[in-house]
Amino acid sequence: MRNFVHAIPTKLYFGEGQIRRLDELLRPFGRRVLLAYGGGSIKRIGLYDTVKEILDKGGYTVTELSGIEPNPRIGSVRRGVELCRENKIDVILAVGGGSTIDCCKAIAAGVYYDGDLWEMVAGDHELLKALPLVDVLTLAATGSEYDAGGVISNLETKEKLGNVYTYPAASICDPTYTYSVSAYQTAAGTADIMSHVFEGYFSRTEDSSLSDYIAEGILKTAIKYLPVALSEPTSYEARANLMAIASVACSGIPAYGKQGTGWPCHSMEHELSAFYDITHGVGLAILTPRWMRFILKKDPSCAWRFVRFAKNVWGLSGDDETLATAGIDALENFFREAGIPMTLTELGIGEEHVAEMAAHANPDGYLKNAFVPLTTEDIEEIYRACL
Amino acid sequence: MRNFVHAIPTKLYFGEGQIRRLDELLRPFGRRVLLAYGGGSIKRIGLYDTVKEILDKGGYTVTELSGIEPNPRIGSVRRGVELCRENKIDVILAVGGGSTIDCCKAIAAGVYYDGDLWEMVAGDHELLKALPLVDVLTLAATGSEYDAGGVISNLETKEKLGNVYTYPAASICDPTYTYSVSAYQTAAGTADIMSHVFEGYFSRTEDSSLSDYIAEGILKTAIKYLPVALSEPTSYEARANLMAIASVACSGIPAYGKQGTGWPCHSMEHELSAFYDITHGVGLAILTPRWMRFILKKDPSCAWRFVRFAKNVWGLSGDDETLATAGIDALENFFREAGIPMTLTELGIGEEHVAEMAAHANPDGYLKNAFVPLTTEDIEEIYRACL
Repeated sequence: MRNFVHAIPTKLYFGEGQIRRLDELLRPFGRRVLLAYGGGSIKRIGLYDTVKEILDKGGYTVTELSGIEPNPRIGSVRRGVELCRENKIDVILAVGGGSTIDCCKAIAAGVYYDGDLWEMVAGDHELLKALPLVDVLTLAATGSEYDAGGVISNLETKEKLGNVYTYPAASICDPTYTYSVSAYQTAAGTADIMSHVFEGYFSRTEDSSLSDYIAEGILKTAIKYLPVALSEPTSYEARANLMAIASVACSGIPAYGKQGTGWPCHSMEHELSAFYDITHGVGLAILTPRWMRFILKKDPSCAWRFVRFAKNVWGLSGDDETLATAGIDALENFFREAGIPMTLTELGIGEEHVAEMAAHANPDGYLKNAFVPLTTEDIEEIYRACL
Repeated sequence: MRNFVHAIPTKLYFGEGQIRRLDELLRPFGRRVLLAYGGGSIKRIGLYDTVKEILDKGGYTVTELSGIEPNPRIGSVRRGVELCRENKIDVILAVGGGSTIDCCKAIAAGVYYDGDLWEMVAGDHELLKALPLVDVLTLAATGSEYDAGGVISNLETKEKLGNVYTYPAASICDPTYTYSVSAYQTAAGTADIMSHVFEGYFSRTEDSSLSDYIAEGILKTAIKYLPVALSEPTSYEARANLMAIASVACSGIPAYGKQGTGWPCHSMEHELSAFYDITHGVGLAILTPRWMRFILKKDPSCAWRFVRFAKNVWGLSGDDETLATAGIDALENFFREAGIPMTLTELGIGEEHVAEMAAHANPDGYLKNAFVPLTTEDIEEIYRACL
């Protein structure tokens, strides 16, 4: 086991009706609130009205920032920072999915950032001084409600960059807010959750037992409950289990004690989203089985991990060689049956940017520390296998 | 899934050599430190000298509280509170196992408590205002390094009471400090870890998937690594895995989303320790299989949970009726093979206080909300089965 530090200050309020805690969670920080959200979904499900009513009743002064994009852009960060400064905001309230929360983390830190905000996004730094952030989650996917990271896109430079900013002070995770999430987004969100686990699970560390069991528990929960959520969108049991695993999956906990891997699938997917603005989880679902097949072929000494994956996650049995690929097949079928388009071609993506994306995904040979080290040529081959 | 709140502010610094962070962890709180510990074990392993050197070099003023008992007593709490008040202590540094940390939590809160300290221990309250507490862990067992609870004994009144006080601000968890822990205490500590999981795992909630998988992962890790730690006490892999599961087991995480159970085995064991001052984990190991057999017989409708336990934790297969008891047999054998005396008689305990202990363990019918509700007569029967 590698050394690790566990220090997540976020308070999770999980379950139906936890919105009743919103006032007590915001109040210690002040009364001037930036209410930030994306499109109209929070209005459609009535959550916007609920939140506004709580804020009005509590005597808060509310400034709104709406229209945060699914892959949130630096322009929204700039807009939010200006609003916070102009209105002397005390606390940011993000209502939405991971994109809204990611954007608000960058805004919260950006308020205190002295310099160009894209430099902050692209710069090398630890946690930053930031405004307090409270969120109300409406999508089980990115885990942004329980980590410090955020991913911001710059369409001009075709860059989509992850960085750390600040932890939410508190996250309200009410599974009923995800009842109306479309089948497509439910499946994509679950693929994102599973990918967060894969990025740590496929590591050279063999002796971090609890982390591996937690990782497998998250994956088995996803496999059990995604089909239920798709066929019965208002199943509390299914939505609650997906929401619970989303928060833990991206917290780093399933990879505690394990060697870092560089998160190869996320590195590759961020390029797809930066160039084509596709849904993150769909990009991950397409890439993951191809990445698995590629590394298994490139370095058969990593097969032990795929054998364990097949046995412990999919409950498969057989000889090791069969198992190693059977687990990958099971994953690809699972995504396909969940209705995710499983080729880039179906998304209208061709060969045109493959070389450029591969170079971006592997700056300075970044992925040489992956579970199986990847060269830029390897990444090109993985992209091509996705077409 | 039931609603839950996850809010653990403790920072865990896990792994060999993390003691180098001690100065930076203490410094924000001030320079007047209460250094609290139990017997001589921290001197034998050189940890006392290491800590003193760091404190001296950092210019801290150190007041010592030594001799905290394995079942820490109210007298030690009183002594610690006096020392803190007299010496205007800024921060408490607990170096030891769960007993030392438990005692220091009560001291940290006791400093601000206006009234008799046994009233604080016995009273009904939430988290209390407390001095900051940092600990250096030397035993994988109670999980006190990652929760807010503490258990304090009063030999005069024959009471041993758990309560919540405060979370440690930071815990340094270095597995190498447990290399010299005896086989007996290693086995007892692991039994304690496993019991923390059982207390939540055996619940009527069937739909909290991740919690159940985390619980099973902790149990499987304990089963794998206790024998390794016993045969090879300086195995970093074994000691690290046991230390990692200890913190998570008692954090409440393996029971998130599940119905409360009243922690029946802990309720019963606290009476044994209060009356006979025995090792907590040994009492739990003796009680647990007897409790399991009793409730399975009393209410066969709970058998599904024991079947899952046998399959998922012990990897057993067979028909359900056989499985339900086979898992319990496996657990009892596991404890016995680890060298734990598996009857109360071996500890010199007889029938003399059974009725009294059973009444104490079930005040106001407290255990009517257990997985299988227990009457005081039921508890007497379980104690007798342990003789």
